[in-house]
Amino acid sequence: MKDLTIVGSVAFDDLEMPSGIFENVLGGAATYAAIASSLLASPRVVGVVGNDFGDEHLAMLKKRGIDTEGIERANGRTFRWRGRYSQDLASRETLDTQLNVFAEFKPKLPAKYTESNFVLLGNIHPALQLDVLAQIQKAGETTKKKPKLVAADTMNLWISTEPKLLGALIEKIDLLIINDEEARELAGMTNLARAAGEIRRKFSAHRKDSPLRLIVKKGEHGALLFDDAGPFFAPAYPLEEVRDPTGAGDSFAGGVLGYLAKMDDASPKALRRAIFHGSALGSFCVEDIGTKRLAAVSPADYRARLEAFVRFVDYGGDLWPSPVN
Amino acid sequence: MKDLTIVGSVAFDDLEMPSGIFENVLGGAATYAAIASSLLASPRVVGVVGNDFGDEHLAMLKKRGIDTEGIERANGRTFRWRGRYSQDLASRETLDTQLNVFAEFKPKLPAKYTESNFVLLGNIHPALQLDVLAQIQKAGETTKKKPKLVAADTMNLWISTEPKLLGALIEKIDLLIINDEEARELAGMTNLARAAGEIRRKFSAHRKDSPLRLIVKKGEHGALLFDDAGPFFAPAYPLEEVRDPTGAGDSFAGGVLGYLAKMDDASPKALRRAIFHGSALGSFCVEDIGTKRLAAVSPADYRARLEAFVRFVDYGGDLWPSPVN
Repeated sequence: MKDLTIVGSVAFDDLEMPSGIFENVLGGAATYAAIASSLLASPRVVGVVGNDFGDEHLAMLKKRGIDTEGIERANGRTFRWRGRYSQDLASRETLDTQLNVFAEFKPKLPAKYTESNFVLLGNIHPALQLDVLAQIQKAGETTKKKPKLVAADTMNLWISTEPKLLGALIEKIDLLIINDEEARELAGMTNLARAAGEIRRKFSAHRKDSPLRLIVKKGEHGALLFDDAGPFFAPAYPLEEVRDPTGAGDSFAGGVLGYLAKMDDASPKALRRAIFHGSALGSFCVEDIGTKRLAAVSPADYRARLEAFVRFVDYGGDLWPSPVN
Repeated sequence: MKDLTIVGSVAFDDLEMPSGIFENVLGGAATYAAIASSLLASPRVVGVVGNDFGDEHLAMLKKRGIDTEGIERANGRTFRWRGRYSQDLASRETLDTQLNVFAEFKPKLPAKYTESNFVLLGNIHPALQLDVLAQIQKAGETTKKKPKLVAADTMNLWISTEPKLLGALIEKIDLLIINDEEARELAGMTNLARAAGEIRRKFSAHRKDSPLRLIVKKGEHGALLFDDAGPFFAPAYPLEEVRDPTGAGDSFAGGVLGYLAKMDDASPKALRRAIFHGSALGSFCVEDIGTKRLAAVSPADYRARLEAFVRFVDYGGDLWPSPVN
């Protein structure tokens, strides 16, 4: 019931932070999303790793209840990314990207993975995201089952180089999770509220069911949801110590989908709450290098962070105590 | 009971916007704050204008219930500012500032102004802000009355050129309302949560009553409150049409103080709600050039905007429906 299929990169990152250089750090969108969502649901990961991927990493994931059957081991080296962050951690530059085994990756979903009620298509080439969707659809023809909600992330690279494939993907999913820059680029307009409206219109023309739902991540400035119930907002938490923003967006997406899977509910109300869970898990993620803090979150830590969020936005629920003069 | 004394600039602005050039637009921090707060409370404005300040502007303010007795008419021209906004309205440059009658301005509070329970010291030279405070304190020695809450705004210029005077002011007020850049500069650190803590500590050492409260404005990204009840956040509304950000921060401050004055309540709970009122009035402000939209807000408009804010942040109040697995 709480199954969540996650497709995306599993990687080793080299992180040049103001606080030091950290190499061979376990990372990748699927890794962050899986670890985050494992606090709420039962993730199933589809990805690829190389010969250099130690069994201890797979063991760590399994110990968290993460199904790693879909993580293929290929001949070669694991996907690697090297980046350097600015002093205030507000920006970063990519120094090196080595696709390695990811270059030839063709996702193959184990049969049970196609039956998850919730699916997160992490940021990979839209052709691969479409391929995963096709596998799920094909299996569904036999089982007469389809996911309650499919979400996808993407990036500027695919928006500019693969607009058609990406468009075909977005038309098929239920929830798009992108950041503010990507939303502006995808819509071709700077006003974020208008950009969100344009994206929802553009990719909902051929839909028979409800229009595309859109989450716009704004990093330290929180996240916006645009759906038929109107805009919704949840803030990021003002942390006094931020060590590494890598993977925060993926942890956020993992938290959102993890909560929906946990509740087995894709309603507008559940999605609003899910965004707080995404924000809470994103806030843990940035507190230490790589997945270190995220992987150490206890249920008590998690509950305390959610309670901090509740206080953070609690205005008492009564903005209009008496008529305006 | 709902009296609010506001000190600050009354000005004419020349605005070079992507949508056109607008000259001789009524502006100034006190003007925006007074018009915004007049929807909630009874503002009393202290400022100075020149011979070129038409009676129609004073008449407009009076018609809104704003006490203009404290607006002195001096020989010369009214304060003028000319600015140019970037295409996306996210940044602006000052093209010209003419202090004019403001250069020699010495605020003189009419006696009744010193008895207001709430005071907003808009962004002017900290020596003038201190002078206003001294007038209020002196009058209080006779009347045995003191304000329930004094708030002040400032700007980067005073943080860098008048740190001692500004420090002396901040030690005396109850609530500092500044933007994120100013908070970082005032604290000398980039992490906003830490900067807020540092500001509160630094200026609360000699206080006998409660520590300084701090609101950090983040423009389109909302506003943070730091007080003894813990951090609090209220978002800005995602408007599809933003025409002119000038005065949004002053309208926000006017809304915050206006709500506190209306409720005659300076409690942490009232302050949290007040920030939503500030955000609502800031959101109206940016919808048209100068004070145009703000001055046209009806009670029905206002209530509808507050209700939109309520929906915008409504997650259903139950983030923790069952134990984490």
